[in-house]
Amino acid sequence: MEHFEITHRDAMGRIAKLETPHGVIETPTLMPVINPNVEFISAKEMKKFGASMVITNSYIIYRSPQLRDVAIEKGVHGLLDTDLAVMTDSGSYQLMVYGDVEVNNREIVEFQKTIGSDIAVPLDIPTPPDSVITLAEEDMKTTLEREREAAKLFSNEKSLLALPIQGSTQPELRRKSAEEAVRIAEEVGVKAIFPIGAIVPLLDTYRFVDVVRIVLEVKSVLPAWAPVHLFGVGHPMFFAMSVALGCDLFDSAAYALYAKDDRYLTPYGTKKLAEMHYFPCSCSVCSKYTPEEMRRMKKGERARLIAEHNLYVCFEEIKAIKQAIKENTLFELVEKRIRSHPYLVAAWRLLREEKYAKLMELLDAGMKQTFFYTGVESLYRPAVTRHAERVKRVELNGKEFVISTNMLEHADLYLRPAFGVVPAELIEAYPAGHAEMPPAEYIEEEALKVAVRNLLDFLKFHKDKKFRIRAEDVWKPHLNNLPPNATLE
Amino acid sequence: MEHFEITHRDAMGRIAKLETPHGVIETPTLMPVINPNVEFISAKEMKKFGASMVITNSYIIYRSPQLRDVAIEKGVHGLLDTDLAVMTDSGSYQLMVYGDVEVNNREIVEFQKTIGSDIAVPLDIPTPPDSVITLAEEDMKTTLEREREAAKLFSNEKSLLALPIQGSTQPELRRKSAEEAVRIAEEVGVKAIFPIGAIVPLLDTYRFVDVVRIVLEVKSVLPAWAPVHLFGVGHPMFFAMSVALGCDLFDSAAYALYAKDDRYLTPYGTKKLAEMHYFPCSCSVCSKYTPEEMRRMKKGERARLIAEHNLYVCFEEIKAIKQAIKENTLFELVEKRIRSHPYLVAAWRLLREEKYAKLMELLDAGMKQTFFYTGVESLYRPAVTRHAERVKRVELNGKEFVISTNMLEHADLYLRPAFGVVPAELIEAYPAGHAEMPPAEYIEEEALKVAVRNLLDFLKFHKDKKFRIRAEDVWKPHLNNLPPNATLE
Repeated sequence: MEHFEITHRDAMGRIAKLETPHGVIETPTLMPVINPNVEFISAKEMKKFGASMVITNSYIIYRSPQLRDVAIEKGVHGLLDTDLAVMTDSGSYQLMVYGDVEVNNREIVEFQKTIGSDIAVPLDIPTPPDSVITLAEEDMKTTLEREREAAKLFSNEKSLLALPIQGSTQPELRRKSAEEAVRIAEEVGVKAIFPIGAIVPLLDTYRFVDVVRIVLEVKSVLPAWAPVHLFGVGHPMFFAMSVALGCDLFDSAAYALYAKDDRYLTPYGTKKLAEMHYFPCSCSVCSKYTPEEMRRMKKGERARLIAEHNLYVCFEEIKAIKQAIKENTLFELVEKRIRSHPYLVAAWRLLREEKYAKLMELLDAGMKQTFFYTGVESLYRPAVTRHAERVKRVELNGKEFVISTNMLEHADLYLRPAFGVVPAELIEAYPAGHAEMPPAEYIEEEALKVAVRNLLDFLKFHKDKKFRIRAEDVWKPHLNNLPPNATLE
Repeated sequence: MEHFEITHRDAMGRIAKLETPHGVIETPTLMPVINPNVEFISAKEMKKFGASMVITNSYIIYRSPQLRDVAIEKGVHGLLDTDLAVMTDSGSYQLMVYGDVEVNNREIVEFQKTIGSDIAVPLDIPTPPDSVITLAEEDMKTTLEREREAAKLFSNEKSLLALPIQGSTQPELRRKSAEEAVRIAEEVGVKAIFPIGAIVPLLDTYRFVDVVRIVLEVKSVLPAWAPVHLFGVGHPMFFAMSVALGCDLFDSAAYALYAKDDRYLTPYGTKKLAEMHYFPCSCSVCSKYTPEEMRRMKKGERARLIAEHNLYVCFEEIKAIKQAIKENTLFELVEKRIRSHPYLVAAWRLLREEKYAKLMELLDAGMKQTFFYTGVESLYRPAVTRHAERVKRVELNGKEFVISTNMLEHADLYLRPAFGVVPAELIEAYPAGHAEMPPAEYIEEEALKVAVRNLLDFLKFHKDKKFRIRAEDVWKPHLNNLPPNATLE
């Protein structure tokens, strides 16, 4: 779509230009939350940390006569005194927390239009995890009706409209919700972004597997042009993985909320100031103070400094991710970052499931130079499956072939960890030939198993040919189930 | 020893106070190399980045009449205009590179004493990797003679003396070299530090497995009080692993050499400025400039800025490591950092070898609170083997016991990934009870295998008792070789 132009891709992640009335935003990015009621770090200051867009809550503004008057008169940008793009939330969060809000969808959407929000949000209903399907479906229908109502108000507008995707933890509803949201955007003609909603309760309970499943289900039906906002996700430990799954926008109230609670963000999790002896960061705050000095400060002063660090580290992570996309090493980055939590490791392993592996294979468009092995997770990258498919298309001239595990000896084909069979003529090509991997005797058994699975597949495919396999000792225990056309020497 | 006081431990790493004539240095730390001939980042400025000690080359000073006169008159601290502790190298590096130096051991050691070096180094002989044992042994003997000669000059001195450990890639020679160096320190009575030498040629060729093997062999004979310097290692990607193996000191010429070559350090490897689009860092340099802006600068100005970043990131990593030691999460940190290179993953897997696993188990003294699983590497932490041993000592009252894989059902014992058998009474205790791990259906097969190995060991140990095992499906393929005293329900 014309308002979202993808410029670089890797894994399912992308760098793109999102056009808003207040300028073109490079995604992936993070929108810091500005609370219009609380003076903390101002929207104006956010540029310094790397922000190009902020998010605030139109419902809070709407409910406060004072804020409302200023916003109507000067617009939301005037209220926040910023020329950055401003997304506004609708009160859905309050709906989730308090069960009710004192505004209806049409009112809050029109209000957002009036105050000149760059991205407005309808009053969608965040259905909690594990809701029964009938409730989740009913909520979803209401949400979609509200989205259509909002879309009509934003058709042919310069501003963007968020069309949130709900459906609780029901994969089929999440897909349906995404499909319908896309239909609304296309039929009514709005510049849409697609937030995935009601994720926070899952994160709060470490249900990262469910989060990844929801994102993958949604991405399986969204078109590539759809900008995706992982609504409520603001911790840098999730950014790399979420971007690699195709998310483009994040928002963070966490930088401030955590800071006020003396919690310090890192791309690998959260640390409590009370337990810190050193700041593992080089930002201007962490270079200037020690944790001990910070603990002796007044609470307000300290919160402000921790919030600054939290913002620095969030945007540092965004930069690391964008750099990884441009150099096509996003898989490597994610495989490092998932070590922040055991359930992130588990969540990433969802990509071993066939339908998700296929989706990743379909969408991963990065032109990679090197296959950099980081551990067993690397075995499930598209490069490995694609190699196995490609190898089957290589023509074998002759009847009998030697396969060796020793790259230093002459052979027709080689057997390499992870990849399996590599024809001699591909031994210099990406991926198997450009793979930085530990040698077989130091690699995990799983890497040999995946290789042998690919080998067996290959042998079966060429059942009219004969193969003699010369294997080093470490391979032998894995080669005791060869088909009749192969012998182990 | 009185000059090296260990205050905190985790894995084989430690935080310690190293006493020098110029103050007490907290280790682990990095000594930036100051080239006395080249004006770049001065010793004086190094404090800003976090340095408390620098290293310079006494041979370069000795060979330059001008530098030499100043050093003799004002001392090496006067020459470098710093009150930081200063270690001086001896010319061994030049010996390695050029094959000869124009000074003998006694002269250069006496010179270092004269100019007031805080840590002097004898003229040891760095034997290259893969040298034949006879040559390596001869070099080592010469090195040890020179160390004894130097030690006599430094006996009862306030200054410290480095007693380098050589021996090429021959494990038995490395051990011998370490033993003899310790003997010299004790017999002659010097405040010693123990550099492990000739590591750089191994790093340059990605032979990280060999590096780890050498360090482990050396550590297997060095006493705990011995401060260890991994000589020539200055890239932050190696710091966490090296500290976890018991190294305390690093030195870096890399921060400057790399910078002059437009190379940017990260704890995960090196990036070329030409290939960077974003700086994934929050230091004052990276917050101020983009890679594009930096590329347009003059070479000298740019080199200076990259060097500053390189120093920031090195000391950021030192801080991250010290924080991890204090909170006893060094294993978790290392298991993240090894993802920087496939051969680091391979190198860390040396700890699966029995003798090295035992050494780690013996020396790991961290009081851990939680077992945070980061991937298959976590299976080889001492916590897992210690648990298996401890479980065998738990008394079993009765004759028949139920073992379940489902923590939600009542059972006498539970079967958990990684740990194996966990008696119900230990299910709330560290490590198995305080383990954050993916559930069995999402964890790697290797974690189930390690658990089953521990289970079988336990069943064999209690061969007079009977066990009924209730296993969820994911476990069943691994439980088909049970001994006669156990049945799968």
